[in-house]
This record gives sequence, C-alpha cells and structure tokens, in this order.
Amino acid sequence: MIEESMVFWIGGIIFALSSLLFIVLENQNDSRKHLFNSHVFVSFITTISYCIMALGVATVTNQDGNVIYWTRWLFYAASCSILTLDVATISKKSREKKAEVVLFTALTMFCGYLASIILTDYRWIFFGLSTAAYLGMLFSLFKKSNQNGSNTSSIMWFVLVTWSLFPIVWVLAPTGFTIIAVDVTAISYLALDILTKIGFGIYITTRK
Amino acid sequence: MIEESMVFWIGGIIFALSSLLFIVLENQNDSRKHLFNSHVFVSFITTISYCIMALGVATVTNQDGNVIYWTRWLFYAASCSILTLDVATISKKSREKKAEVVLFTALTMFCGYLASIILTDYRWIFFGLSTAAYLGMLFSLFKKSNQNGSNTSSIMWFVLVTWSLFPIVWVLAPTGFTIIAVDVTAISYLALDILTKIGFGIYITTRK
Amino acid sequence: MIEESMVFWIGGIIFALSSLLFIVLENQNDSRKHLFNSHVFVSFITTISYCIMALGVATVTNQDGNVIYWTRWLFYAASCSILTLDVATISKKSREKKAEVVLFTALTMFCGYLASIILTDYRWIFFGLSTAAYLGMLFSLFKKSNQNGSNTSSIMWFVLVTWSLFPIVWVLAPTGFTIIAVDVTAISYLALDILTKIGFGIYITTRK
Repeated sequence: MIEESMVFWIGGIIFALSSLLFIVLENQNDSRKHLFNSHVFVSFITTISYCIMALGVATVTNQDGNVIYWTRWLFYAASCSILTLDVATISKKSREKKAEVVLFTALTMFCGYLASIILTDYRWIFFGLSTAAYLGMLFSLFKKSNQNGSNTSSIMWFVLVTWSLFPIVWVLAPTGFTIIAVDVTAISYLALDILTKIGFGIYITTRK
Repeated sequence: MIEESMVFWIGGIIFALSSLLFIVLENQNDSRKHLFNSHVFVSFITTISYCIMALGVATVTNQDGNVIYWTRWLFYAASCSILTLDVATISKKSREKKAEVVLFTALTMFCGYLASIILTDYRWIFFGLSTAAYLGMLFSLFKKSNQNGSNTSSIMWFVLVTWSLFPIVWVLAPTGFTIIAVDVTAISYLALDILTKIGFGIYITTRK
Repeated sequence: MIEESMVFWIGGIIFALSSLLFIVLENQNDSRKHLFNSHVFVSFITTISYCIMALGVATVTNQDGNVIYWTRWLFYAASCSILTLDVATISKKSREKKAEVVLFTALTMFCGYLASIILTDYRWIFFGLSTAAYLGMLFSLFKKSNQNGSNTSSIMWFVLVTWSLFPIVWVLAPTGFTIIAVDVTAISYLALDILTKIGFGIYITTRK
C-alpha cells in the first residue's frame, strides 16, 4: 500500500510546475488575449489543494476507518468553475450563459463536498443534487452554441467524457461503496486532475 | 410540537419541485433572455440549505437548549444575492449599482450568520451590522432608478415588506429572545422562503 | 501588556466610523461615478473582522501559548480584493487584467489564512504560495499599464510599499518567529489597516 500523503505531495509538485508552465504558455498565445491567465489559476488552486491534503488536516474518517479528503471538492468549486468559464468563453457563450455554467459548476462541486463530508446514507441526496447541477452545467454548455469553430465541440466532448470519470471514482472510493482503497482513490483523482487540468490546459493554450 | 426536521424535509421537497418549475418558466419567457436562469439557482440553493438543516448537522445549541440552524444564513448569502441582482437588473441599474446591491445583500446575510452562531449578547453587534448592510442594500435599490416600468417599484416594495419579516422572526426566535419555539421558527422561515423565493419568482418570471 | 481585545474593539469602532466617512466621500466625487462605493465596503468588511477578533472566537493557540487570530486573513481576501479592483479600475486595466488582480489578491490572503491556521513548519509552504500569488498580483498590476495619469503609478507604488509590510509583521509575529508579542502584532496590523484602508481610501476618493 502506498502512503497517500506521498501521492498528494507529488500532486502538489506537479501542479506547482504546471502553474509555471501555463505562465509561459498563456503569455505567448495572442488568440488568448481576451482571457485572464485562467490555467495559471487552475493549476495554482490545485497546488494549494494538494498541499492541504498532503498535510492530512481537515479530513473525516468513515465507519470503515477510511480517511476522506473532502477539501478537494471545495477547491474544485473554484478551479473547475474557472475551467468551465474558459470553455464557455472559447465557445463564445453570452454573459448570461457563462454565469449559468459557472454557477452550475460551483454547485456541482459544493454538493460533492457535502456528499463527501456527510458519512450517513443521506449523502446520496447530495450526490443526486451534485449530479443534477452537473447535468445543468452540461446542458447550458451544449445548448445551441452560436456559430462556433469546429474544435469547440471537441472541447466540450472532452469535458463531458473526462469530467464524468470523477463521480465514478467517487462512487467506487470510500466516499461511496469503498470498492477501491484510499491510496488508489488518491492516484485515480491525481491522474484525472492531470488529464483535465494540465493536459486540457496545454491543448487549449497551444491550439491555433 | 412538530419535529422541525420534518418541516425542513418538506421545505427541501418544495424547493426541489420549484427548481423544476423555474426551469420551465424561465425558458418560455422571451423578455428574460438577458438574464441567467436566476430563479432556478435560488430554488436549487434553497433545496441544498433545507436538506442540510433536515439532517441537523452544523447547528449550535443555545443556553436554553434550543437548536439554532445557522447554515440557513450562509445559503441566503448566495440565494438572496441572486434575487437582488435580478431585481436590480429588472430595474435597469448600472453595473456599479448591481455590484453594490449584491455586496450589501451578501453582507446582510453573512452578518446574520455571525449573529446566529454567536450565543452571547455580543451577537446584537452583528445584528446591528446586518441591519446596516440591509439598509445600504435598500438605499442602493431605491435610489434614483432611471426611467423604470411601473411595476418595478412594486417589485422593490414587495422586497422591502416581505424581506423585513425575516429579521422580525430572527428577533422572536431562539436566535433573539426565544418568544417563539424552534418548530414555529422553522415553519415561519419556510413560509417566508416560499413567499419571497417561489411566489416572487413566479410573479417575476410570468409577468408580461 | 495591552489586552489585544481592546485593540480590536478600537479597530472596530475606527472602521465603523470610516465606513460612514466613505459614504460621504464616495458620493460627492463625480469622477468616481464609474465605481461602486468600494471603500465603504472595505471599511465595513474590516469592521466585521475586528468585531470577530475582539470576541476572541475562532482562533488557534500555537505551541508557545500565543493566540493567532486567523480570521483576519479571510476578511482580507474580501476587502483587499476590492481594494486592488479599485486600483486596477483607476489604472484603466482591461476586464481580464482586473480578474487576474482580484484572483491573485484573494489567493494571497487565502494562503495567508492557511499559513496562519497551520501551526507546524509546513505553514511556510503556504507562506511561499501566498508570496507567489502576491508577486503575481503586483506583476499584473504593474505590467504595461496603457496611458495612465501620472498619479496612477504613485498609487501602485503606495500599494507595493505599504502592503509588503503585512508579511513582515506576519513573520515577526507568533504566526512566524514570535519576535513580537500578540498585543504588538494587533497594534501593528491595526496601524497598517488604517494606513492601507482608511488613509489610502481618503487619498483615492478626494484626489482630483
């Protein structure tokens, strides 16, 4: 068994480095001048999140003795809202649609936090509310995007497919049915974070 | 005596249903195209708030043994800010006035949270600060609204009258002088929430 | 030794009065019509912060028995973000630059909160992340400001010099190396708050 604090420290270092990488990437791409350095913030917020999890502060332990790192979801509320704002901006959504997408993303992650911190079966209510907000976000994002470039929809499909793996890990992990252990959970989320935040960010900031 | 958790579950179900209702109402009214689906978010956030109160987590018990559900006020900070943003948008306020109205609303509710969680007499300081922020919000909302439609002022008067009932309940409830019991408090707030969030929302989204 | 709660009550009263002062100052200056009453909010939020510290709730005590008032930093996240938004608006920054400046300011203060609440040596990680966000904020603020008035840069230099005193107090205080005591810390921060929030606000709102 791998010590999960090691996984979190590695995650912290990876995202600290990707923060620096995006400072370079986001300032050499002229087509992104209409955006704040959003991927720098996504990586920086994720760095903070991983350092807190590495210290093992602010966790709950469920009835099986498994540690649940619920802080992750509060940081996702910030970082993922920035990511969906970026996707909505690239897709040339209206200001109103952007507000909807950001609010739905924040509520998805906030309900994910509640579902993680509550240890009784009632947590599934919040899992349900999180799923409802997630569907609302996807609906706002996919609905009638006015004349977009061709790779816009590929971006949205990438978000749909990769982001939907997070709730699957949540269900398999100690937060759900404890089918996978705490360390495998930590590694799975790290792999998904690298894919959806660094991989996605590099694709977005380097495409022509 | 009614079990207050029953009141909260009923509240959760009512607001879950009103979230669905507003998805329908806000998408059939063309005159609201300049707004995000604000009443969907108000009802959805209130649903989360009621589910948390129903579980009885995150409460404090005062010296008389009465349970105080302080989380309510943090959710009001989000939901009521969206409501006053909606009122300010309908009243064609400038971006600056909208920011003022939203910030004052959030501070009103945040100070209400502090007044609820602090059990000593010092809580009245925060009740006073909450009142100051509330007056600031009303002042920003009522001041010199440039050429509005006739029912704009009726909307603002509705907000003024119905919202002012919340601090009255607060003062009568265990948060204030414990003149009304915890269960009556829960029912009173639920009635006010239905009036100010669902009733108000239906009026706003269906008017011509 | 001075009771620090006395310092905090004095701070609360000073900022309550300055909230009133800025209501007057910000409404008599026509050149600020494009701004919400930002300095009213900065002083009001600081009033709440001082009242909470005066009550001594929500603190941690470090291994030397010194009380650390960590709530301060969460309120700075709100108040200082409004201040830097004001500076960025006066400097005619783009919407994107404003978003960067606000996000970096909020992250600076949020990491300062983490560095204050964590009592082990790992807190220096968050001190480092806070410093990184602070440098990001300064960089966004100073970089290539398109044709500004002459006193714009003096405003930015004032922010740079006076704000940099906060981390110095943090390092000297029980949060860092406990070179200065809790009461001297409270007085130092109060002096800096008066300088950077009231003094700065009066300068900004009364200049021609």
